[in-house]
Amino acid sequence: MRSEFDFIRNIKEKYDLRHVGDDCAVLPKDSKTDLVTTVDLLVEDIDFRLAWTTAELLGVKALTVSLSDVAAMGASPKWAMLTIGVPKRLWNTNFVDKFYEGWTTLAKDHNVELIGGDVSRTPDRVVIDSILLGEVPKGKAVLRSGANPGDSIFVTGSLGGAAAGLILLESGFRYSKVGQRRKALITRQLRPTARVDAGKHLMKRGLATSMIDISDGLFSDLHHLCDASGVGARIESENIPYDENLDAIGPDILHAIRSGGEDFELLFTSPRKKISNAKLPPITRIGEITTNVGQVEVIDGARSAYVARTGYRHF
Amino acid sequence: MRSEFDFIRNIKEKYDLRHVGDDCAVLPKDSKTDLVTTVDLLVEDIDFRLAWTTAELLGVKALTVSLSDVAAMGASPKWAMLTIGVPKRLWNTNFVDKFYEGWTTLAKDHNVELIGGDVSRTPDRVVIDSILLGEVPKGKAVLRSGANPGDSIFVTGSLGGAAAGLILLESGFRYSKVGQRRKALITRQLRPTARVDAGKHLMKRGLATSMIDISDGLFSDLHHLCDASGVGARIESENIPYDENLDAIGPDILHAIRSGGEDFELLFTSPRKKISNAKLPPITRIGEITTNVGQVEVIDGARSAYVARTGYRHF
Repeated sequence: MRSEFDFIRNIKEKYDLRHVGDDCAVLPKDSKTDLVTTVDLLVEDIDFRLAWTTAELLGVKALTVSLSDVAAMGASPKWAMLTIGVPKRLWNTNFVDKFYEGWTTLAKDHNVELIGGDVSRTPDRVVIDSILLGEVPKGKAVLRSGANPGDSIFVTGSLGGAAAGLILLESGFRYSKVGQRRKALITRQLRPTARVDAGKHLMKRGLATSMIDISDGLFSDLHHLCDASGVGARIESENIPYDENLDAIGPDILHAIRSGGEDFELLFTSPRKKISNAKLPPITRIGEITTNVGQVEVIDGARSAYVARTGYRHF
Repeated sequence: MRSEFDFIRNIKEKYDLRHVGDDCAVLPKDSKTDLVTTVDLLVEDIDFRLAWTTAELLGVKALTVSLSDVAAMGASPKWAMLTIGVPKRLWNTNFVDKFYEGWTTLAKDHNVELIGGDVSRTPDRVVIDSILLGEVPKGKAVLRSGANPGDSIFVTGSLGGAAAGLILLESGFRYSKVGQRRKALITRQLRPTARVDAGKHLMKRGLATSMIDISDGLFSDLHHLCDASGVGARIESENIPYDENLDAIGPDILHAIRSGGEDFELLFTSPRKKISNAKLPPITRIGEITTNVGQVEVIDGARSAYVARTGYRHF
């Protein structure tokens, strides 16, 4: 029996899905501009649980996952299409209104215009398909394939918070009934932020040779980037910027979080050793691109290990 | 309790979904070209049943519904994104392969390039979201809003076959076990054809003042067109080109079929009284645009009646 992860990876590879190797597909628009496009499917009880979140937060997250893909290209989000399938039990509630309210609030922040979509009923569960189009100066989209041996590897912000939030939710903790630090972790899972401005800034300044957003998990997404670039990577474990609240769930599950996804931070490479700017979020150098094609090596003190190609598994 | 139709219509209207009033959204691309985009969600047991069709035919239909939207703008399909959610019971079958096989065969016929998409698992049912982008010369997209009083109303091909095919399937008939005429009706339901060339031709020659594809049903879609154009319509019942095989399901259900959808023929208006061309499918004049805003009147011999705003209801 194939695992879910294998099944999905096989289909994506076989049919060049998930944007033919990048976070967005890139199309020529006009003489100065390229168009980027991304699609993300969210299915109830696979990608979210209605008992854990609110309709508004779900609207926010549906747009965020797509904003993050556009951010990873260094592009500016512009137009969205939003498809939603809703089961009968939600027709007479304010679910759809609240969902759009959340979506619209975030869309306004990013000047994203809703240009269409579709709506349907479903037998049991909510399904959402989020489609986002963006623009980037011609030839300037930051791809996964541009990393060179010797480049430094950077991440924005901090990692592991979204996975820790998921672990808390799965363990029965709820936002309204936990302390501030656990609230912060659950917020990273239910109300993530896309690094749109950081992505644009890195593109404009030509700082990133390659980029991807961390949706599957640090090591899984780093593998994607290395594969696309035909390179390898060496990561210094102690430099990974874990979420400051992670120990609020106990130190024993850090290994689970190391490969946890949905942080929606940016992972990118640059010839520079240091990158900082008042316009950027905290950026941490976590390692270096190597010639060891397809291999991700993690240095942990005196020990070194190659990381398996696993990543985020949805609950 | 709201009906499904009301629920969906309310959401579409409230949030300007379903392409903000046209079959596709229109975006500026470059100085010579506009971009059109469309999204269609297909949910198992709402929009299709796996027991009635094959994975290949489902792939064909997923693309066809979007091709039809692009055709209704007079545009040329170019790029597609395809999202599919698949339940575990289908992982180890050839379902996904056959689905893409069907999709790809039709995509090649129309020079449509798959540029991305997403894949996910689902708890129970297959969901498909079909996204299609196309191009049309700047300002030339044929909208729903251009019909003028006095224009003739035309349809391509024939109507009712897809609805009749659905009735046969719902009644337990299966393609492999019926005669040629019933096979033809089931084919119209399971393997519809989009009028892409006809749409392009009408756009190029400037023949259509407004256009929509018949996906909800003749009268429902005609209401949409009239609403967008701020006009009314008078239809001569005897001129409606019903599918030649319709009587294979018995004459008593013709009333159900009159409002049946999914024929994916084009409904358009033109100042001309007659349109025919070797490059076009059969085109029939079925009535005339009136000043009777929002009203669709049907003349049936000596009788005349206004048609209620109902349309295709999914099973």
